[in-house]
Amino acid sequence: MNYRMIAYLTGVIILIEAAFMLLPLVVALLYGEMSGVWFLVTLAAAALLGFVLTRLRPVKRTMYAREGFVITALAWIVISLIGAAPFTLSGQIPNYLDAVFETVSGFTTTGASILPNVEALDQCMLFWRSFTHWLGGMGILVFMLALVNLAGGEANHLLRAESPGPSVSKMVPNMRKSSAILYTIYMVMTLVEVVLLVLGGMPLFDSLCHAFGTAGTGGFGVKAASIGYYDSYYLQGVIAVFMVLFGVNFNVYFFLLMRKFSMALRNTELRAYLAIVLVSTVTIALNIAGMMPSLFDAFHHAFFTVSSIITTTGFATVDFNQWPELSRLLLVLLMIVGACAGSTGGGVKVSRFVILTKATAYEIRRLLHPRSVKVLTMDGKPIGRETIQGVQGYMMVYFFVTVISMLLVSLDNFDLTTTITAVEATLNNIGPGLNLVGPTENFALFSPLSKIVLTLDMLLGRLELFPVLILLLPSTWRKH
Amino acid sequence: MNYRMIAYLTGVIILIEAAFMLLPLVVALLYGEMSGVWFLVTLAAAALLGFVLTRLRPVKRTMYAREGFVITALAWIVISLIGAAPFTLSGQIPNYLDAVFETVSGFTTTGASILPNVEALDQCMLFWRSFTHWLGGMGILVFMLALVNLAGGEANHLLRAESPGPSVSKMVPNMRKSSAILYTIYMVMTLVEVVLLVLGGMPLFDSLCHAFGTAGTGGFGVKAASIGYYDSYYLQGVIAVFMVLFGVNFNVYFFLLMRKFSMALRNTELRAYLAIVLVSTVTIALNIAGMMPSLFDAFHHAFFTVSSIITTTGFATVDFNQWPELSRLLLVLLMIVGACAGSTGGGVKVSRFVILTKATAYEIRRLLHPRSVKVLTMDGKPIGRETIQGVQGYMMVYFFVTVISMLLVSLDNFDLTTTITAVEATLNNIGPGLNLVGPTENFALFSPLSKIVLTLDMLLGRLELFPVLILLLPSTWRKH
Repeated sequence: MNYRMIAYLTGVIILIEAAFMLLPLVVALLYGEMSGVWFLVTLAAAALLGFVLTRLRPVKRTMYAREGFVITALAWIVISLIGAAPFTLSGQIPNYLDAVFETVSGFTTTGASILPNVEALDQCMLFWRSFTHWLGGMGILVFMLALVNLAGGEANHLLRAESPGPSVSKMVPNMRKSSAILYTIYMVMTLVEVVLLVLGGMPLFDSLCHAFGTAGTGGFGVKAASIGYYDSYYLQGVIAVFMVLFGVNFNVYFFLLMRKFSMALRNTELRAYLAIVLVSTVTIALNIAGMMPSLFDAFHHAFFTVSSIITTTGFATVDFNQWPELSRLLLVLLMIVGACAGSTGGGVKVSRFVILTKATAYEIRRLLHPRSVKVLTMDGKPIGRETIQGVQGYMMVYFFVTVISMLLVSLDNFDLTTTITAVEATLNNIGPGLNLVGPTENFALFSPLSKIVLTLDMLLGRLELFPVLILLLPSTWRKH
Repeated sequence: MNYRMIAYLTGVIILIEAAFMLLPLVVALLYGEMSGVWFLVTLAAAALLGFVLTRLRPVKRTMYAREGFVITALAWIVISLIGAAPFTLSGQIPNYLDAVFETVSGFTTTGASILPNVEALDQCMLFWRSFTHWLGGMGILVFMLALVNLAGGEANHLLRAESPGPSVSKMVPNMRKSSAILYTIYMVMTLVEVVLLVLGGMPLFDSLCHAFGTAGTGGFGVKAASIGYYDSYYLQGVIAVFMVLFGVNFNVYFFLLMRKFSMALRNTELRAYLAIVLVSTVTIALNIAGMMPSLFDAFHHAFFTVSSIITTTGFATVDFNQWPELSRLLLVLLMIVGACAGSTGGGVKVSRFVILTKATAYEIRRLLHPRSVKVLTMDGKPIGRETIQGVQGYMMVYFFVTVISMLLVSLDNFDLTTTITAVEATLNNIGPGLNLVGPTENFALFSPLSKIVLTLDMLLGRLELFPVLILLLPSTWRKH
């Protein structure tokens, strides 16, 4: 294990986080909030720590998959522990475990909160809370890769460990350039959303925070009623559409930029994703029509909620916990499906389900026609045996993590729906679940053990299981 | 498609069922119940139908996997439709859909009931209801194979379609002999249980019915309070131990008979199965200790319930629906795990989970050491890529069937736990679920649509998905 490399890169990440803490500091100055001083304190301490760690320049620059996983998991834990400090130091979230839960929820773009009343926080705290979504959405390691020049192989291990989806397709051969392109698209889209929200009459501060929450598919808001506070079809509609957009694989936008329109639109995952959004919206709209003042309202709120859940954002316009069981169950399933690979969204990812569906249909065909030799394809290319194996392995690990988490959380003895959806909502980085963790509730009710389990689930979900598991595996740390 | 072969074998099965209807007829005579006449009527009609069908001697004797699946699925549906007739003709279950639900539940050894009060049935009806468990447990096609001499290849297709588990290992090369050995072991074990129950003071009739329910891992009882009616640690203990025994792969008993003791005890699945029973029993016992008069009672009822659920029997001594959430969730998970392959139990089967766990551990190892070339093994033999692929394909189909069933059942708008456990309890052939389908409740509350869905789930579960799916697949019936 290349320990110096691990320490060095963790140091770089800490320095990046320290730099970003200047933003809530500015917000505190603008609003004249004393609590902003704690960002200065944390920033200074983090900068010092980062400075020390980056002095440990690695002797060997070699890095294997193992180091890639370990650095990624470690970096995410460290930035969460540091990012939580201002909340507790200022006394706005007095319990540090709660503050860590909230910050991990932010960076992993989950949006699950332990706050009974979000409106009680200072503006600078709210800003930082939403900004963690934006940073975590595209990935802090991806950000680092856009700044630091690492050798191709090393960078690849990091990108692979942080990027969601069954496989990473590079946009351009140069890793630094790829990362820069990703962040540029991301920034421009966020900016467009801010402008559209401000034009619709939303205050600039709220627009920024909600755009961060949409872009990262996070879901932290600044109002207790979430997006339901803004009684405007336009504002809610803008956010709904942008949620869907940020749930799309960013490769599609890159192809659009390169004017490869047919490449962009032939994407199987994109089609499946939009089809699921459409079918779910129509089903839920018809299912809830009786509870809504008009069919238009039914479609509006169904579309908003479906976008919010499948992209794993977690914003709410209405209390979908009150909906009929068919809609509730469909939402739980959408939580698991998640958004597209290579987007900022969480969940299992649509492409994994596309691959699994194809592999399953193939198995059934093989039962009937044992001598058939058809090859599985996606987007015109054959799906390798390795890819299918990888996806099926992923699903199994996902299943085991889910089961163990649910058993531990069930010790708190809340009803089964609460337990199941609390785990699904954190593991898939959604935010709200159903019943006691529904959109009008929060996660404060859980025991410390459950909070730790759910915090780990958020990290497991965002980093797609393996980095965190490998970090915790004893065999990783044994001498080989 | 060899239609004459399908008709012929279905006819044989119908004749076998008609013969077995003599048993409830005898019971009716002994108890002087008029309703027994309906068994005579059904028996006569079935015999006539079977006679006509068996006149269609197949011209070609060739049979492919496709025919094997179709015959199996069809045979199970036909015997259920016929077996349900006496319930409705006698007016004891006036609604024929309900009677079919009850009979499918019997043959598939599910044990889910639509009866609000089981004690209202005549003795001959109770006997037939329990006897369907016994017949369905080992399989009616396996029974036929013990009587009729089919060519090796043909018989193999049928056995594969009806036998639970990822692969069928023949005991002896001759299929007819294999089936006969299976049924002999099965009969002797059932008989031993009857004797032990009678010795403990249970009436002979009750002992027979409960032994049928235990042997087939079905769960239909003759009392409203299930096994809780018999306030005896001995009687409940005998049933608990026999449930565990009938959940073991029958190959193990064959090895014991052959005096290959080390072969029997080295069985990986058996060890995993017993380990799960042990760990679950201890966990639940400690979890419910506070609700029980003594720690002994806690262990007694925990062991009974764990055996009942993991073997997918469904007998109950207490209302486990009232237990804390950890125990409830653990029971739901045990429902899915199920018993050993090659036993009379349902569920996904322990061996499938063993294979999946091994394959998953292998995938994680491969991430860390990409150039490792270790081979996966089970019971000392390598696990083929085909087997793993098959199991993963099975899990995916299982997942899709579960999801679609839950969505359809959720239209009835009962709480999520009821919906989820109703599907799991039928698909895995358990019987009772939680909440509104808990052990003191029944399935009468569902709409006709849900009853049809759950009936199909029972058949899908018992026949391990593919035969029923292939029967329903349009491409099966297209000319090739």
